Amino acid sequence: MYAIAIHGGAGAMPRDRLSPEAQQRLHAGLQSALDAGYAVLERGGSSLDAVTAAVRVLEDDPQFNAGRGAVLTRGGTVELDASIMDGRSLRAGAVASVRHVRNPVELARLVMEHSRHVLLVGSGAEEFALEHGMSLVANEYFRTEERARELAIVRAGSRVSELIPVPGGTVGAVALDRDGNLAAATSTGGMTNKRHGRVGDSPIIGAGTYARNGVCAVSATGHGEAFIRAVAAYHVCLSVEQRGLTLEQAVREVLHERIGALGARGGIIAIDARGNAVLEFTAEGMFRGCRDSRGRNEVALFRDP
Amino acid sequence: MYAIAIHGGAGAMPRDRLSPEAQQRLHAGLQSALDAGYAVLERGGSSLDAVTAAVRVLEDDPQFNAGRGAVLTRGGTVELDASIMDGRSLRAGAVASVRHVRNPVELARLVMEHSRHVLLVGSGAEEFALEHGMSLVANEYFRTEERARELAIVRAGSRVSELIPVPGGTVGAVALDRDGNLAAATSTGGMTNKRHGRVGDSPIIGAGTYARNGVCAVSATGHGEAFIRAVAAYHVCLSVEQRGLTLEQAVREVLHERIGALGARGGIIAIDARGNAVLEFTAEGMFRGCRDSRGRNEVALFRDP
Repeated sequence: MYAIAIHGGAGAMPRDRLSPEAQQRLHAGLQSALDAGYAVLERGGSSLDAVTAAVRVLEDDPQFNAGRGAVLTRGGTVELDASIMDGRSLRAGAVASVRHVRNPVELARLVMEHSRHVLLVGSGAEEFALEHGMSLVANEYFRTEERARELAIVRAGSRVSELIPVPGGTVGAVALDRDGNLAAATSTGGMTNKRHGRVGDSPIIGAGTYARNGVCAVSATGHGEAFIRAVAAYHVCLSVEQRGLTLEQAVREVLHERIGALGARGGIIAIDARGNAVLEFTAEGMFRGCRDSRGRNEVALFRDP
Repeated sequence: MYAIAIHGGAGAMPRDRLSPEAQQRLHAGLQSALDAGYAVLERGGSSLDAVTAAVRVLEDDPQFNAGRGAVLTRGGTVELDASIMDGRSLRAGAVASVRHVRNPVELARLVMEHSRHVLLVGSGAEEFALEHGMSLVANEYFRTEERARELAIVRAGSRVSELIPVPGGTVGAVALDRDGNLAAATSTGGMTNKRHGRVGDSPIIGAGTYARNGVCAVSATGHGEAFIRAVAAYHVCLSVEQRGLTLEQAVREVLHERIGALGARGGIIAIDARGNAVLEFTAEGMFRGCRDSRGRNEVALFRDP
């Protein structure tokens, strides 16, 4: 049994504002990321490689708020956060507030595998990238016309969600491989019009990302501050491990009771040690997909298919 | 009932390398921070004000690795991290990799109380400080001769702990006030010779700091990467809340079983909703103290008094 689940962000998404063509493009983008991760698992690759591959595709796709096409800060630039965790060794890597790294998930993985550290931020993270032979790109690479329009709208005092039916969100992936190893990864551009230096839950191990073999792998999306305060990903993981909750119970508890009590919404994807995937959200919609060796292969955007 | 506990770092501390005079100065520094926090509680102040006051004293005291006297990075500068959490509202604030903020715990609190965010890093955090009327100081303010010597020793290939019997550590405080509100705060300069941009557990809500009314308040010190991977502070808090563990059992489990399994050591201070304080460590020693309205008033450096 092997399986992968992905998300491309959760948020307010009035269906009637998203044209059939736009919906089709989002579907195709999600399916492409899902397939890239699944292909790794199918040929016997690791869950770590699978989540890296899936998140890389989502980062490269300008439709999603990570890597190219990430939302813009107050200053009109892009600042990216990402993390990854290996459920087998409990090793983890994360980067925050980087501005010139094409695929932040790859840098997070480099931090995990080639440093003694878990979290590097800002120019120090980019220095580390350069020292390890990663080439940097201009901040302009990430910027798209659509995100510039969103920023202008937010600055004018409107909510993006009232006008452009694409969630700010985040992207992420969780996977179980043939060897029973779990892994999780998350990547984001954060919130439109965010303050320079603001870091949400995506690069925070325990908040946006967690994985532990024999238990589960978790990636979150939504109002990052609430997910940090609720330590959402680890709440799920420890609750499955030590409280006897099913993965679905644990995910629902943190979204509905903990995050809900903080007045916030979002979504969580998670996969347990037997490959069961849970994709749950309290926002209006969540871009998501899952595929496993039992034949499940689904992509969805809204609450009702 | 009201109570406060503090720590000034945990680590290797061969007692014979610490002169009686140095021990006395450390004792006095800890007592002074403990008394500053206790005085707040005694006059009916909040646990949030108490932990802020105690950590501020430790940040200002060059003996401890936070604020003035923080350890130096590879580049010979100081980069500071801090966080604070209010157990009543579950609000939290944190800053990482700041270089010009005299009392990082105060900036963390400003983030908590005057922004919509939890975590700000680097120059963005300092921009926020300036916008809120906080004056910045030169990085040179934090630098002491002793830390410059330590950096030279580490660069020469020795371990600081072999030569200078003061733990790198971190400082922190947890408190319960008369109204039953719990709070926690942590502040650090990180590791000697650390890479620019490296962030440990101190500013990570759930790892180095957590507080929830009715349950407990937690502050950690030690090998930051392991505390992040184990989500140490929240492991304690959720275990007390949902698994029926006593505070002592939960703290021992995370230090001995979780952090230990990662090959790392450190210490945790925590206080529960009835004001019971736990000060536990797996390192050789932990600078620590606790004081409560039942008359407990202790400061200690080593395992055996």
